[in-house]
Amino acid sequence: MSSDNKRRAFFISDGTGITAGSLGGLLAHFPDTEFEQIRIPFTDSHQKIEDAQKRIVNAKLINGIRPIVIMSIGNNILRSELKQVDAYYIDLFESFIYPLGEELNQEPLTRPGVAHSMKGANYGNRIEAINFALGHDDGMTHNGLNQAHVILVGVSRSGKTPTSIYLAMQFGIKAANYPLIPEDFERGTIPPILEGYMDKIFGLTIQANRLSSLRSERRPDSHYASLENCKDEIKKAERLMQKLGVPIADSTSRSVEELSAIIIQHINKN
Amino acid sequence: MSSDNKRRAFFISDGTGITAGSLGGLLAHFPDTEFEQIRIPFTDSHQKIEDAQKRIVNAKLINGIRPIVIMSIGNNILRSELKQVDAYYIDLFESFIYPLGEELNQEPLTRPGVAHSMKGANYGNRIEAINFALGHDDGMTHNGLNQAHVILVGVSRSGKTPTSIYLAMQFGIKAANYPLIPEDFERGTIPPILEGYMDKIFGLTIQANRLSSLRSERRPDSHYASLENCKDEIKKAERLMQKLGVPIADSTSRSVEELSAIIIQHINKN
Repeated sequence: MSSDNKRRAFFISDGTGITAGSLGGLLAHFPDTEFEQIRIPFTDSHQKIEDAQKRIVNAKLINGIRPIVIMSIGNNILRSELKQVDAYYIDLFESFIYPLGEELNQEPLTRPGVAHSMKGANYGNRIEAINFALGHDDGMTHNGLNQAHVILVGVSRSGKTPTSIYLAMQFGIKAANYPLIPEDFERGTIPPILEGYMDKIFGLTIQANRLSSLRSERRPDSHYASLENCKDEIKKAERLMQKLGVPIADSTSRSVEELSAIIIQHINKN
Repeated sequence: MSSDNKRRAFFISDGTGITAGSLGGLLAHFPDTEFEQIRIPFTDSHQKIEDAQKRIVNAKLINGIRPIVIMSIGNNILRSELKQVDAYYIDLFESFIYPLGEELNQEPLTRPGVAHSMKGANYGNRIEAINFALGHDDGMTHNGLNQAHVILVGVSRSGKTPTSIYLAMQFGIKAANYPLIPEDFERGTIPPILEGYMDKIFGLTIQANRLSSLRSERRPDSHYASLENCKDEIKKAERLMQKLGVPIADSTSRSVEELSAIIIQHINKN
């Protein structure tokens, strides 16, 4: 009971709860309220509705204020049953899905798990892209580079790997990534294997302080992590990318979501 | 113009467009309509609103029917400006954020990019968890296993890697994964290094036909991919997991989202 002053936000779904849960992003618009987010997936029976109700009632007892409930439940009976206890409900079926059905002139599917099943659009592509990103991480292999939608380059720890994986997982975009290393700077070109793919290359850069701190987590007190070496590598990498006309985004204060959105815009333009 | 019969669905945001885009899951409730989903992030100026309007108008011209627009734009003026052209609008600020603000008795932040910045709750944990999942993929290392929230086991290609990465990326859950191999079956125990972590182990299984087809993509016509060998490995792996009381989920017809939701429920119970 250590978190009594946190407003509870439940995400209750008859499926994975991912669509409902993604609306958790909206809570970030209210930084003065501290939320405790609780996900209750697979709520597809009377028993499970009752269990969820108990947790809602209990949250109000503990916290003294009714919780927020963001819900996606297709079955009409279960849906109204849940809402019999006091809470602030955001009901995706009532607010969105039924009104959208009127616009489309179509009855919605109401069975559980429609949105995030394997049958969903793009699922196979996304899994394939994850395998591609893992197989083409850190310049691991050159095979199949022609299949890449984008090839991220940048100094070690500039954010290439998590960004590649996010692009794959979320959008099914095949992203390879290559480190830029001192050899490349001396030669003054990108890794030769990439020369045939100039139009796919996207650069990441980062501020030296931040890079030094990230590298120190991995290898404390090393030349690799020293501020001086980070400054030097970054300067040379940026100069190289600029010379070659490679588009660059700075990862210092951008999340992988923000970097990915920028990269996708670039891909779409090309 | 090959996709003229597809109804356009725009996701227009002043930030990454991820919250708006995640509502794309709702479109899956209408399988009879074919959608073309178009994401327009960073729409944060009059010029960009105008560009978006042109695309909306154009979509209607091409398709003959007004598009769906799911929008999250914090600036009042830009928000109303966008809606001057004909479309079916789902406005996250009007439908959700402002009403929620009344419930919370708080004015929402309206600047762009609130939901998916690096300052978001859990961002650091999620990146750390991705690095953990990558470093502990396929039994790569035993170091730091005590930090794992869950350790996935199963035969090769049963879905451990993408599930581990999804758990990390989406939820900041540290998931290691270990393959179960013929040596383990002969010995009749899980890999000895895991014995101290029995309460963290979660098993994945899969049907033999599906496994054989997945393995064939990687090594066609191999003993590894043969239906007979797949059947044998799966039988032995399931027997071993049951003997040890390891909880099991079948990945054959479940997405990584569905597997992750099941695994999180299990973690929460423990």
